Amino acid sequence: MPPMSESSPEGRISYGDAGVDLRAAEEFTGRLKEIVGSTRTTDTGGEFGSFGGRFRLPAATELVASADGVGTKVLVAAAADIHDTVGEDLVNHCVNDILAEGAEPLFFLDYFACGRLDPDVAEAVISGVARGCRANGCALIGGETAEMPGVYEPGHYDLAGFIVGRRVWDLPGRAGVEPGDRLIGLPSSGLHTNGYSLARKLLFDRMGLGPHDPFPSARAEADAPTVAEVLLRVHRSYLGALRPALDAGAVRALAHITGGGIPGNLSRVLPEGIEAVVDVLSWTAPREFGILAEAAGLEGVELYEALNMGVGMIAVAAHDRAAEIRRAVAAAGLEAFDCGEVRSGKGGVRLVGL
Amino acid sequence: MPPMSESSPEGRISYGDAGVDLRAAEEFTGRLKEIVGSTRTTDTGGEFGSFGGRFRLPAATELVASADGVGTKVLVAAAADIHDTVGEDLVNHCVNDILAEGAEPLFFLDYFACGRLDPDVAEAVISGVARGCRANGCALIGGETAEMPGVYEPGHYDLAGFIVGRRVWDLPGRAGVEPGDRLIGLPSSGLHTNGYSLARKLLFDRMGLGPHDPFPSARAEADAPTVAEVLLRVHRSYLGALRPALDAGAVRALAHITGGGIPGNLSRVLPEGIEAVVDVLSWTAPREFGILAEAAGLEGVELYEALNMGVGMIAVAAHDRAAEIRRAVAAAGLEAFDCGEVRSGKGGVRLVGL
Repeated sequence: MPPMSESSPEGRISYGDAGVDLRAAEEFTGRLKEIVGSTRTTDTGGEFGSFGGRFRLPAATELVASADGVGTKVLVAAAADIHDTVGEDLVNHCVNDILAEGAEPLFFLDYFACGRLDPDVAEAVISGVARGCRANGCALIGGETAEMPGVYEPGHYDLAGFIVGRRVWDLPGRAGVEPGDRLIGLPSSGLHTNGYSLARKLLFDRMGLGPHDPFPSARAEADAPTVAEVLLRVHRSYLGALRPALDAGAVRALAHITGGGIPGNLSRVLPEGIEAVVDVLSWTAPREFGILAEAAGLEGVELYEALNMGVGMIAVAAHDRAAEIRRAVAAAGLEAFDCGEVRSGKGGVRLVGL
Repeated sequence: MPPMSESSPEGRISYGDAGVDLRAAEEFTGRLKEIVGSTRTTDTGGEFGSFGGRFRLPAATELVASADGVGTKVLVAAAADIHDTVGEDLVNHCVNDILAEGAEPLFFLDYFACGRLDPDVAEAVISGVARGCRANGCALIGGETAEMPGVYEPGHYDLAGFIVGRRVWDLPGRAGVEPGDRLIGLPSSGLHTNGYSLARKLLFDRMGLGPHDPFPSARAEADAPTVAEVLLRVHRSYLGALRPALDAGAVRALAHITGGGIPGNLSRVLPEGIEAVVDVLSWTAPREFGILAEAAGLEGVELYEALNMGVGMIAVAAHDRAAEIRRAVAAAGLEAFDCGEVRSGKGGVRLVGL
């Protein structure tokens, strides 16, 4: 884990002149060691500053891995100068992706790239990654921090993550989904990590709002949340809420609702000739979705493809296990809802109640 | 593995208007499936388009993982419009990092982010990743392609990679390095993935060269390589060249020479109170290093911290195993050289012959 991709000499043209700041890099590396240490799990090996992070697996294992970013949510974070949440978004996004393949997280690595390293910003970002890792029982065993003048503007950065988990739940998945199965929706906390190019265009460019302005609302409110507060709500991890139902074998398949929304992601767990019918009146989308939809002039399927509309994960279960899943999720403090069913048909996702 | 982080609706403000191009994304996804399939290994599981890539490990395993980028080499690729090599740089960089921890590669995931998706460029980049994976016996089991207008300028992109390997060689590492040990240098192919902010500033900004101009030379040459040809030479993987010596147990530690050069990386495998003395006259750096050094006005330690100066990996071995390592590397077609020794001292790396 070389924490910086660039180091700096002190010659006539130094890396400092070329736009790479060694002092900031060294300061950041010192802070990083402590942050990373806070995520150690019993299987973590190696030491900080080695060329690669180590992780012991005591037995034969099926690994599940995923790579992701948080899209242009990083631009909202930069505009709002709030940097300690996107790391948690990133981890939770990755955790949900491998959860959909029946895996619980083992370890994580991050890639943070910026135009000019600000140690405070980088520390806030990686602290968010570490907080997300701790909350999901996942060790942050490595990462790369790159200062890349010319690729990123000063003040801008990008953040990508890589997770490896162990497949502990043998979800039947696509092959096990049958007509008559129920769809159980789990509420999202907001936009999660998708639709930010659209939301930024509407709120910042078209409405001319700043990140600290009140989020637009149909009626005046005394303590309305700001645009940044609404847009930076952390992508929810469903690991804790779904673990009991997964342990009980009640889940046939999981669809993590990310880019492409419900139609784009639920279709990924449907076999040929099987369709999912989703009743969009079975839950109430948080208000920000309605406001964004109206501002964009989006409706129908297009709207549900652009935004998650309040649903962050959909579980597919045999009809006699659906209530059990809702109860188990409720015990973890989330209100899941029956949002449709699986039928024979021409395949794909059909939204009703639009 | 959702291949695109953003999808596009067709509303009054669509993702197309917001700067995200669905058609390009779909076209690219179709090509991606074939490229990724070309890297399958026997332990790869799951199917293209699932939420996470699967990988079976048949027994207890110590994993080694690393995350990396290729620095501003991506800007050289963009300027030269040559996109099929940086992916191989990325894989080889990651392979060498985990090799230094005694691991051989198992699987890889990439993160490709751009301002506007050009399917031809993205295909070329990911094809380079896949070529690097095949050459190193590594499966590309996932990745993320993100279109992020506002973060990346049109034509610009960034590329990060994540590798997971299996620790098969129990290198003593830092704890096993002793006074009297020899240092064996392995030649780099060029700058590898480091020093590009400096090189770009010198060649493009100060000398006013373009990527397709001849690389500056002390003497006129009929078929001199271009700036792009020199700067885009692919980061060398040392896996094949070092495997026999590693299998024979001849290597005590490995230092992958990346950011920070020989001083910054060789010091990572030295215990307290032990110093490495590197004789810089023991090898001849390729000509481009001298030209960059002169142009920058860099010399001494600063120069060796800024650039790898022709050394991509240094192996540490007991003095009676050094010749065996050089012979084994030579059998793989690379000329390794005895470049110094380990001594008692105040620690750190000392360069002699400057």
